[in-house]
Order: sequence, then C-alpha cells, then structure tokens
Amino acid sequence: MEPKQTNSPKLAETINAKGFSHAAGFRIIAVEPGHAEVALARRDDLVQFFGHFHGGVITALGDQAAGIAVTSALPKGRIGVTVELKINFLAPADGGELVARAKLLKMSGSIGVAVVEFLTRDEKSERLCAFCTATMRALDLPAEFK
Amino acid sequence: MEPKQTNSPKLAETINAKGFSHAAGFRIIAVEPGHAEVALARRDDLVQFFGHFHGGVITALGDQAAGIAVTSALPKGRIGVTVELKINFLAPADGGELVARAKLLKMSGSIGVAVVEFLTRDEKSERLCAFCTATMRALDLPAEFK
Amino acid sequence: MEPKQTNSPKLAETINAKGFSHAAGFRIIAVEPGHAEVALARRDDLVQFFGHFHGGVITALGDQAAGIAVTSALPKGRIGVTVELKINFLAPADGGELVARAKLLKMSGSIGVAVVEFLTRDEKSERLCAFCTATMRALDLPAEFK
Amino acid sequence: MEPKQTNSPKLAETINAKGFSHAAGFRIIAVEPGHAEVALARRDDLVQFFGHFHGGVITALGDQAAGIAVTSALPKGRIGVTVELKINFLAPADGGELVARAKLLKMSGSIGVAVVEFLTRDEKSERLCAFCTATMRALDLPAEFK
Repeated sequence: MEPKQTNSPKLAETINAKGFSHAAGFRIIAVEPGHAEVALARRDDLVQFFGHFHGGVITALGDQAAGIAVTSALPKGRIGVTVELKINFLAPADGGELVARAKLLKMSGSIGVAVVEFLTRDEKSERLCAFCTATMRALDLPAEFK
Repeated sequence: MEPKQTNSPKLAETINAKGFSHAAGFRIIAVEPGHAEVALARRDDLVQFFGHFHGGVITALGDQAAGIAVTSALPKGRIGVTVELKINFLAPADGGELVARAKLLKMSGSIGVAVVEFLTRDEKSERLCAFCTATMRALDLPAEFK
Repeated sequence: MEPKQTNSPKLAETINAKGFSHAAGFRIIAVEPGHAEVALARRDDLVQFFGHFHGGVITALGDQAAGIAVTSALPKGRIGVTVELKINFLAPADGGELVARAKLLKMSGSIGVAVVEFLTRDEKSERLCAFCTATMRALDLPAEFK
Repeated sequence: MEPKQTNSPKLAETINAKGFSHAAGFRIIAVEPGHAEVALARRDDLVQFFGHFHGGVITALGDQAAGIAVTSALPKGRIGVTVELKINFLAPADGGELVARAKLLKMSGSIGVAVVEFLTRDEKSERLCAFCTATMRALDLPAEFK
C-alpha cells in the first residue's frame, strides 16, 4: 500500500509546464489520485499526413495523462515514469480537440498500470478514437525537482 | 503477396514533410522496401520533465519509421496506417540525437508488423533506449494524396 | 458496417469445444454480441512454478473470451482471429477460479479491438488480477467449419 | 548492476518441471544468461478451432522462454516474474513443432525486457509465426523454492 499523503495536484501542473507537453499545449482538465484528464487542441504542427492528430502526439497525450494519474496516487516525493505503453488507434482523430482520460487500474509495489480512453471532439460529436494501457514505475523524485 | 513495383522512396519524403514530423524535424536517413531509419535532434520543445526526449515524441518517431518501412514495401498507391503500437522504454533518451530503425517482420494480407529499435546518441556513445512493435494496415492512398 | 444478423451463440460453443479450450475446461458463462464471459477452474496442470494460474493459460482464456466477444458481433459466417494481444498481470491469479470478461471496444472495417478484465475468485473474495487488449481480424469461416 | 554469479541452468529445469509447462510438454533446448530456447510438440489438446497451436499456448511457451532468459541472467536466488507481455501472431502455427527463442534486450534495475521469436516447424520447412515482447520483474525466490 502506498502511504496516505499523496502528491499535490500542483506537481501535475509542474510536470505539464515543461518541454513537449507545454509546447504542444496539453491542458490538464482534472486530476485526482488515480485519475487524470488532459486535453489538446488541433494545430497544424501536431497532425500526420492525412491531417488528423499524429499517432505519436496522441500517444504523448496518453502517456502524460497516465503519468499524472499514477503520480497523483503516489506519496509525496515519488513520481511515475513509463516502463512501456501500448495504444490501439480505433478511429481517425479528426476532431478539433483530443481528450485523454486516464485511470489507475492497480498499484502493486512500485509498479502501476493505467488505462487511457481517447475522445476526438467536434462541435457536433464526440467519439472514442484510441485506447491505451501504460505500465509505470514509481521513483523518488530527484532532489533538484522537489 | 504484394505485387512487385513498390512505392517510390519519394513517398516517404512526402509523408515526412507534413505536420508534426516536419515541425519536430524528423530526418529520413535511409529507406528501402521493409526498412527505414529516421533521426531526430534534441530540442527543448521535444523533451519531458527530466529533460530527456518525451516518451510520446520517441513513440512518434518510431511510428513514423515503422510506417515508412511498411509503406515502402507496399505496391504503388498503397499506404500503411497504424492499427496499434507498443513501446518499451529501456533507458533514458538523454542524448543529443535519437534514431529509430524500423524493420518489417512480416506482411500477411493487408496487415504488416514491424519492429523498431531506438538508439540515443552522444559524441561519446550510442545505446539502445527503447524498443517498439507496430501493427499496420495497408490502405489505398486517397486520390487527393497521389 | 457489419450486417445485422450476427453469429449464433452456438458458434461460440462450437469454437470452445475443441482443442486446448476443451481440454483445459473453459466454460462459457455468457455471450452476446460484443460481450463474452469465460471461466476456468484451477487444476494442477494449469499452474506455474508458484502454483498460481500460468500466465499463458490466463492469456489463453482471455484470447478465447475476446475471440468470442468479437465473433458474436460479426455477421453469420465470419469469425474473428487474433492479430495481436497484450496482457498485464496485476496480482497473483491464486484463486480457485479465473474469470475473463471481454468487451468489444470498436469494430472498424474488418478489424475489431476488445478489452478483457480477469478476476481471480475464492470463496472469500474476488479481485482484478489481469487486463488484456486484443486486436482481431474478421475472416470468412472456411466452408468445412460452417 | 546485477552481481556476477547468475542462476544455475538447473533452476530453469525446475521451473519447467511444474504445472502447465510440464503437462504441455515444454522442452528446454538451450539456456544461457539472457537467452533461452523452448520447444513444444503439437498435440490435439494444445490447438484451437482450426487445428493450429492455440494462441494462448503459443503465448505460454513465449512467457516461459522469456522468464527463463531473464531468470538465467539474474543473480542466484532471484527469479523473473511477468509484468506484461505482448504478442503478434504472424502466420498460422500449423507445424508439428513450435519453438520459442527468447533474448533479454535490457535489464535496468529490477526490470528486464525480453523479445521472443516463434518458429513453426515441419519436416519440410520452418518459418516465423509470432513475435513477443515481455516485461519481467526480478523478485527474491521465496525460501520454500530455493
């Protein structure tokens, strides 16, 4: 069992404010221990050949959401890093917005497994466009990041 | 069996010149039927919290390399799109350059499976940092893209 | 779109009555289009080194449940075969019974993706012990099996 | 870094002599630190609906081979257990013998990742029929098993 005082939701914002997630414009919609929802608006520099969200960008959003869902369930000072992830693309991510909803399935020892559902959204509709499973490993957050 | 005249390597360049792969700076190093090598230089907008390449960006590079490896083995006018992919992160991608080397394992009917090895590189060294498997489906390239 | 008249639940029983699924004692608990639940009782020839269900046997049960969930949503005369599957082991499958509950997430063209939850059960308790995603491909059932 | 004296190849035989692997007839062909080859002869109780090796049985063979490859690279008294595995079925496993060749890609801390190639064999021919990636976690072997 992981101890009681979990990471503050502020850590999720700190993680998100750096590098690719910041540059691409990932927005955290919701965080609570074991859950995270992260959204992304379509931009021409985030798509693939056919003009839909690039599979790698979709995966990045899911990785971020899964990492935040797991990290938010960890005790203060611990962070989840990705061991592996697996994603199925179910329909073209051709909407103006992409949403990743991550849920921690199980923490066992230092290993956490999360699933992520992805929705592609338009004014008119919303539909499931991808599904991901991610395995995370809990590490001590290095002192320089605390 | 897929027919003899495969896609021209120019198609790979066309695919790569759009959207995220162009914006991130993916460079095609080599293409031949069933093989592709794609490289990416480190930039501050491509990293995660710790300053290493973001897992989603690594995955995007692998997806691109796998797609090019499969597409380059397909007959003219067909393109490979990703059904699913799975990646293991083996070591921090903390070098100045990341390279993805994709190889088609098997084409069966319209389904192709490729594996991708990722190297992280520095002036001093080079090491395996991730491994990916991707399942692709061959589609007719829509007329507007031919 | 797949046509309206789906396979009869009897096909699931026919599939299950052969080979390994029969020998191991897989029992179909429920089938409806897009859903299947299959159970298995612990036997000494189905376990691994520590005496829990063998990971491969757990995977076989999930593969069977996913195949039945997808096949039961297909039109008469079509069958789902496994392209790939991925399973996370979340807790020891140390109960006397194992249950796999499969649900079709999405059918797109001839490709169907299902998820499977696995429960390990005892007189005392029931808990999630594994989670699987499977990609299936619809084929025409060969004449000899119709 | 894992210490120098690795597990004896006898541990692989001990693991293999129990439960499902024994009942199905898994045969260890070769073991050395980080590598394992395990074979299985076709039997009517190991196949699926079409009479080919059941996907779950193929997966079980791969899981066993990956576990032995990782465990044989671990120090005495440690054993690799499966966190997750992913398998692509590339061609029908319709030969009289199935062979799984596992190789440890990377050990990092207590996590090891292995890949497995599967060959289906006949008097006439041999071909690649599946490919698997497995993530393992090293544990202390419980005292009762030492």
